[in-house]
Amino acid sequence: MAVLSVLTPALVAVLCLVVGFMLLRPWERKTTGASEGKVSNTESRPWVDQDLQDSSEISAKETEGDDWADSCEEEDVAHVPYSPERYSEETMLKKSKDFYSLMNQRRSVRFISPEPVPREVIDQVIHTAGTGPSGAHTEPWTFVVVSDPEVKHQIRLTVEEEEEMNYRQRMGDKWVQDLSKFRTNWMKEYLDVAPYLILIFKQTYGILPNSKKKTHYYNEISVSISCGILLAALQNVGLVTVTSTPLNCGPRLRLLLKRPVNEKLLMLLPVGYPASDATVPDLKRKALQDIVVHI
Amino acid sequence: MAVLSVLTPALVAVLCLVVGFMLLRPWERKTTGASEGKVSNTESRPWVDQDLQDSSEISAKETEGDDWADSCEEEDVAHVPYSPERYSEETMLKKSKDFYSLMNQRRSVRFISPEPVPREVIDQVIHTAGTGPSGAHTEPWTFVVVSDPEVKHQIRLTVEEEEEMNYRQRMGDKWVQDLSKFRTNWMKEYLDVAPYLILIFKQTYGILPNSKKKTHYYNEISVSISCGILLAALQNVGLVTVTSTPLNCGPRLRLLLKRPVNEKLLMLLPVGYPASDATVPDLKRKALQDIVVHI
Repeated sequence: MAVLSVLTPALVAVLCLVVGFMLLRPWERKTTGASEGKVSNTESRPWVDQDLQDSSEISAKETEGDDWADSCEEEDVAHVPYSPERYSEETMLKKSKDFYSLMNQRRSVRFISPEPVPREVIDQVIHTAGTGPSGAHTEPWTFVVVSDPEVKHQIRLTVEEEEEMNYRQRMGDKWVQDLSKFRTNWMKEYLDVAPYLILIFKQTYGILPNSKKKTHYYNEISVSISCGILLAALQNVGLVTVTSTPLNCGPRLRLLLKRPVNEKLLMLLPVGYPASDATVPDLKRKALQDIVVHI
Repeated sequence: MAVLSVLTPALVAVLCLVVGFMLLRPWERKTTGASEGKVSNTESRPWVDQDLQDSSEISAKETEGDDWADSCEEEDVAHVPYSPERYSEETMLKKSKDFYSLMNQRRSVRFISPEPVPREVIDQVIHTAGTGPSGAHTEPWTFVVVSDPEVKHQIRLTVEEEEEMNYRQRMGDKWVQDLSKFRTNWMKEYLDVAPYLILIFKQTYGILPNSKKKTHYYNEISVSISCGILLAALQNVGLVTVTSTPLNCGPRLRLLLKRPVNEKLLMLLPVGYPASDATVPDLKRKALQDIVVHI
């Protein structure tokens, strides 16, 4: 009886510990995942959970004001008058319609002609992309233009290898059955064929003269905006591309292209003339009234 | 003694529960913080740690292939021939230079004229922004155009309130001393003055006809690209703006503008003609050779 009265507290303690662990486990799993960026399901999909803020909102808390050029670095920069060309209302309306018409003809094109494209045009297009705004005027972008056939092929192999893993992991047995229905798969022939591959890297931070890291606020948003201007510039000269974000192969492509560790691959754009038999999916865009709200 | 032997297990149980709770609390706090986007230091600054993956890379693991239109939803869409206008090399080069020249004149302008701007031009500009590519053709954007003076003023009050907190929290006493050096502060007069405020929301998910959530892959990158095209369209008609990301006030502005919970504010662009005495900081852009690498 005396033994039992000693044992009982011990037994209760063990029971409590077991219950405690069962309570702890779910939190632990959740937290570890979050800090490693490897959370599955809802937690790793910021767009699914309305309450889960994504990086842009987290990063906003770290910035020095929301106005992209309100940085300390700019305080002592002299101001100069700015008076761009001004058009009549009639001209504005015509220009806006013409530009809409031009941009509305843009499509993501996977069938790219191998014909050569003047390099100077590509340079002008990238120069244009470089006019985009950026957080604190950091200009956090590097455009790697690959025309070397061997390097293009290496890129293709890397992308296809990762893509095949994506497809197989995603589809399993069902993939094998359904393959015939697919119009696109992991094969990216255009990566060999297109005369240029433009790989757009975001510089996640910069290096100051004193070797310290310089924060690049909003680098992903800035580089994406710049990519929008690049797409407009390509369309303006009659070249095509398909916007892709091969992020699973980012580290391998970064090493292949010998980019520094502060750069991360954001997009890969194969660029050229459309193939003479190019096709695009017959998709429609939303009507204006479905994307705009006037207040 | 019999009472004690009954009480002891109860006491041990209480002790274990207390210890258990102490173990639980830190995890809980961490997890809550992560889900609310309130993590501090390294965890909230994806750009500082090269090994810490940011949202774009996390999301990549969840996507169904890296090619934006390789979605299952597109499989059964018919393909149609695509043959856009083709220019001579000479014309391409001229067009690319002209477009660079136009875009290179774009600047972020904080001094906006109150003069009215034709609403149809704004609509065309937004329609143009809506031609951007998006992950799986989800078109995850809503452009809220505010011209109502009272709503504009409410937006200004909200933004300034949050901005003042940013400034004061950031600068503390030093802020008071250094204020005179500042050319910009938390006052955003242009939010009252500009004839239009365009608030760009990213739709973090969509709603399917069966009421289920539809994942919007790469919604932030897509909307940012669209914003790049919008900036090009504004520049094309001679209007100015300043790109800002007032994310600290996102939830308040979402409620003010009665946007649904799946929409998050990504950018706020005041739009109008430049004021006749507008100035801009005398900043230079990087040279082409500093942003491009040829391989």
